[in-house]
Amino acid sequence: MSQGANWQELVADKQRRQKASIPQDWLVAVPPAAVLDVTAFPEQCGLLSERELQITNTVDVGVLLQKLAAAEWSSVEVTTAFYKRAIVAQQLVNCLTEIFVDKALARAAELDKHLKSTGSVVGPLHGLPVSLKDQINLKGLETTMGYASWIGKYADKDAVLAEILYECGAVPFVRTNVPQTLMWPETYNLVFGRTLNPANRLLTPGGSSGGEGALIHLRGSPLGVGSDIGGSIRIPALFNGLYGLRPSYGRVPYAGSSNSMYGQDSIPSVLGPLSNSLSGIKAFMQAVIGREPWLRDPLAVRKKWDDEAYALAGHGSGQALCFAILWDDRIVIPHPPVIRALEMTRDALTAAGHKVIDWKPIKHLELNDAISAVWKAGALEDYRATTAASGEPIISSMSPTNDGIVDASVRPDVIGVSAYQLWQAQNARAHLRKEYLDHWEQTVEVTGTGRPVDAIISPGAPFAAPPHGKNGNSNYTKVLNALDYVACTFPVTKVDPTLDAKKPPHQFLNDADEVNYNLYDPVTFQNAPVGLQVVGRTLEEEAVIAMTEIVDSALKAAAGA
Amino acid sequence: MSQGANWQELVADKQRRQKASIPQDWLVAVPPAAVLDVTAFPEQCGLLSERELQITNTVDVGVLLQKLAAAEWSSVEVTTAFYKRAIVAQQLVNCLTEIFVDKALARAAELDKHLKSTGSVVGPLHGLPVSLKDQINLKGLETTMGYASWIGKYADKDAVLAEILYECGAVPFVRTNVPQTLMWPETYNLVFGRTLNPANRLLTPGGSSGGEGALIHLRGSPLGVGSDIGGSIRIPALFNGLYGLRPSYGRVPYAGSSNSMYGQDSIPSVLGPLSNSLSGIKAFMQAVIGREPWLRDPLAVRKKWDDEAYALAGHGSGQALCFAILWDDRIVIPHPPVIRALEMTRDALTAAGHKVIDWKPIKHLELNDAISAVWKAGALEDYRATTAASGEPIISSMSPTNDGIVDASVRPDVIGVSAYQLWQAQNARAHLRKEYLDHWEQTVEVTGTGRPVDAIISPGAPFAAPPHGKNGNSNYTKVLNALDYVACTFPVTKVDPTLDAKKPPHQFLNDADEVNYNLYDPVTFQNAPVGLQVVGRTLEEEAVIAMTEIVDSALKAAAGA
Repeated sequence: MSQGANWQELVADKQRRQKASIPQDWLVAVPPAAVLDVTAFPEQCGLLSERELQITNTVDVGVLLQKLAAAEWSSVEVTTAFYKRAIVAQQLVNCLTEIFVDKALARAAELDKHLKSTGSVVGPLHGLPVSLKDQINLKGLETTMGYASWIGKYADKDAVLAEILYECGAVPFVRTNVPQTLMWPETYNLVFGRTLNPANRLLTPGGSSGGEGALIHLRGSPLGVGSDIGGSIRIPALFNGLYGLRPSYGRVPYAGSSNSMYGQDSIPSVLGPLSNSLSGIKAFMQAVIGREPWLRDPLAVRKKWDDEAYALAGHGSGQALCFAILWDDRIVIPHPPVIRALEMTRDALTAAGHKVIDWKPIKHLELNDAISAVWKAGALEDYRATTAASGEPIISSMSPTNDGIVDASVRPDVIGVSAYQLWQAQNARAHLRKEYLDHWEQTVEVTGTGRPVDAIISPGAPFAAPPHGKNGNSNYTKVLNALDYVACTFPVTKVDPTLDAKKPPHQFLNDADEVNYNLYDPVTFQNAPVGLQVVGRTLEEEAVIAMTEIVDSALKAAAGA
Repeated sequence: MSQGANWQELVADKQRRQKASIPQDWLVAVPPAAVLDVTAFPEQCGLLSERELQITNTVDVGVLLQKLAAAEWSSVEVTTAFYKRAIVAQQLVNCLTEIFVDKALARAAELDKHLKSTGSVVGPLHGLPVSLKDQINLKGLETTMGYASWIGKYADKDAVLAEILYECGAVPFVRTNVPQTLMWPETYNLVFGRTLNPANRLLTPGGSSGGEGALIHLRGSPLGVGSDIGGSIRIPALFNGLYGLRPSYGRVPYAGSSNSMYGQDSIPSVLGPLSNSLSGIKAFMQAVIGREPWLRDPLAVRKKWDDEAYALAGHGSGQALCFAILWDDRIVIPHPPVIRALEMTRDALTAAGHKVIDWKPIKHLELNDAISAVWKAGALEDYRATTAASGEPIISSMSPTNDGIVDASVRPDVIGVSAYQLWQAQNARAHLRKEYLDHWEQTVEVTGTGRPVDAIISPGAPFAAPPHGKNGNSNYTKVLNALDYVACTFPVTKVDPTLDAKKPPHQFLNDADEVNYNLYDPVTFQNAPVGLQVVGRTLEEEAVIAMTEIVDSALKAAAGA
């Protein structure tokens, strides 16, 4: 683009180029906007063959990897199948940013050739298409991250994570949509527009990894990579009925990926996987850590994948665990479907022979305030510096009524402070982390297992996917970023107006609680997926995955019973 | 103290109380100030019995621990012996802050009783007296950290590290001197005054853990704990001929210890051991990590002591390693004795069958600038906030001519910036870390071992212990805090006017290099210990200790040859 182009021209050009990157014969006649639930459409649209549907409906990534390794399915056909479904998803819910079919299929063909000629796989993710949030640089592609100002910003090399995924045999095949600044729990920006929830297009898919959430929801990708600074992996995972892991700081390499608020390293964003299967979550983590990311990313923790931890060595080998349920965070009472999901999980775990007690939350409000104070310290200057290049407005709301733009190019929630003031916020947060850790350790007195609580079962939001512009509470996820706890989401149920009737008003804890109560209406939320999160301690990725498997199996057993 | 007391009154009272805490019969007739080398005095002063000298001259902590565990020496007699020697050291070089003989001996007696009645040790450090830098809170004692404003600040609980040391069977027995703010590489404050170097009292023992350095130098403690944010463990270790380990962020728990610049968590200070023996360094690390500090300190890394890493699994099992020598950092050329130490180490390693190549430093200036920019961002406001309570001046120089106080209570080197500007400095530093890591990895092409360089042998300072007020260059240590690399110091030699003659001027790299050249004079530095550091990567504590053992053995073999 010419230097003098304004942001609208940059966007118009980028949108033209994005459209042109879609193979014309993959365009379909999409249902009208009035059709809210579009989850069945990919199977009905006729674009995918029976075999392609079989492939894309194989939600278990472990099975996909087996079939790829056995050359039962080639990488080219698996990649083609998911690509077609991803393009259908794009037409339904607007979830993609970069589309690069030739590059991906060339890579898949290489992998097929390698397997055929050597008889062995390139790595543990051989042939698997993987979608990437629009932060993870791929050499030669633009990383716009929802900024008009970054249109034309071509990466000169792969992010460390992309390098590692290639070495593991994966096939990065699409990049996915985000909100401008990445600091919203919904997905809307001025370049690519808004991503919708496939279960109900009037609802948000969440954010900031909302493109991933919506895409995987529609089975347009078997495994995706998002990032999470306050819930940005988990919120879309929950709102789309997925598994999504928020690892600890530095367990997955971030170096070479784009981001907002560079240099804010006190409460950093982390990369992590989203998938329709827990086997996808595990395969990703094991593969990435197996490549020793600390040799390429100085912030990656030198810590191997720990099979003993995965076997729950520190948690009674997974027998008779003690889970604790966080019914509410004492800030906002979750909506009825979330409470029902907690009850279902409690009952399933109890039936599976585990103990379930109540989790007593402490200082969630203070932790949420601390994390916000850290981000706000320099956020506005960051947003201004980034958007200045094109003159694009800073989006100040995710509401669709004004398309998120207000006149003042200021987000009123962010006011800069001095470095010294930032340190005070960071110090307050350090003390809260210590207090929370001590609190957790003290549960050894009430579990009866001789151990503190093994994991917390917590809402990831006080609601299922809300209408666009209404996702105003990220406290249930954000508190865990403040604590740097590992959390993995799992799907439980869907909003059902019969089972999830609105309750009479309770004694409201505060204004936010009242606002949240008023937001609920069973019909509005109808069909929205409902999930929860399993919460473990810092650097307990292996154990949290294993415990989520236990919870997931218990729920499936209970559903089958 | 009364609320209205001024800082001089507070200090006078604290000094009176400190003097009173010394058993009167442990006071000795000290040599006059003109006697510079006082290292032999503890053995000559007559206070310690033959047996007490035998105990305190046992520099190998492994041997001390064996004798304690075998009840060959009781903890009471070992603690008494070191305590007496520490009090002699205090009279010679002013290295102590808190003195608490009764508390320590009561603890030692408890341990003796336990061993006698149960036949087993309390933990891996059973009975061992351990000195602590004046940051590590002990319940019931004041932590002043060199601030008049903190006189009367009694800790209501032990720091996490102190808790763990107690559980390991250690006997915390003295606390040691620091500079005001902790942010100087020398040791002087308005409460306790200046600590001197026992090898030559006109020289600094370094800082900020200078009290530890001087105390252990005189064998007044077998094992001490310091902290290192820019070299504060390693500088005193080097200037006093000791082993001193700078662990990675979070490998040793910091929670519950006092500090300056609370909340500055980008380049945090770390706690680590100093000792006359490497067995002391290893015993400390293994014992502390063995207590799973991450269950009590949320910032402690969940990473067990790794015996495979200690066996150098990632480094050819310690056979035919490739070391790289950093001859200079391209900022300041080290003085002749430091160059001689590098040559001695190179020759010893070569003779021991290891390969030694040259290390090419990159961006040391930029890394040092980055780390300084982070600290300076809010340092002055921190110092002002802390000193305001008593009205004490902020020390602006370590020079003894004006006792370090200038009229303006401002350190001119620290100017606050906004949080956003701090983020920019932090971001610049993150990029430099990535660049350095890639640079290290690329050495795989030149080592001939199939691995990148196993460890760097680096100066820890461009000089041996300089005269008070002259330690103006911490770049050789600070750069490793910026990189979060593990570094362990080891002693090599002493400044010898015959061997270390001043060289003719070289082509100066810059003004700092010229200043440093002019500082050297073999007679001024006479007798000062000269050490170096073994440098490994982040979270490689086990391997760095093992490689320092290799270097140390090679030097001892060469000296014996």
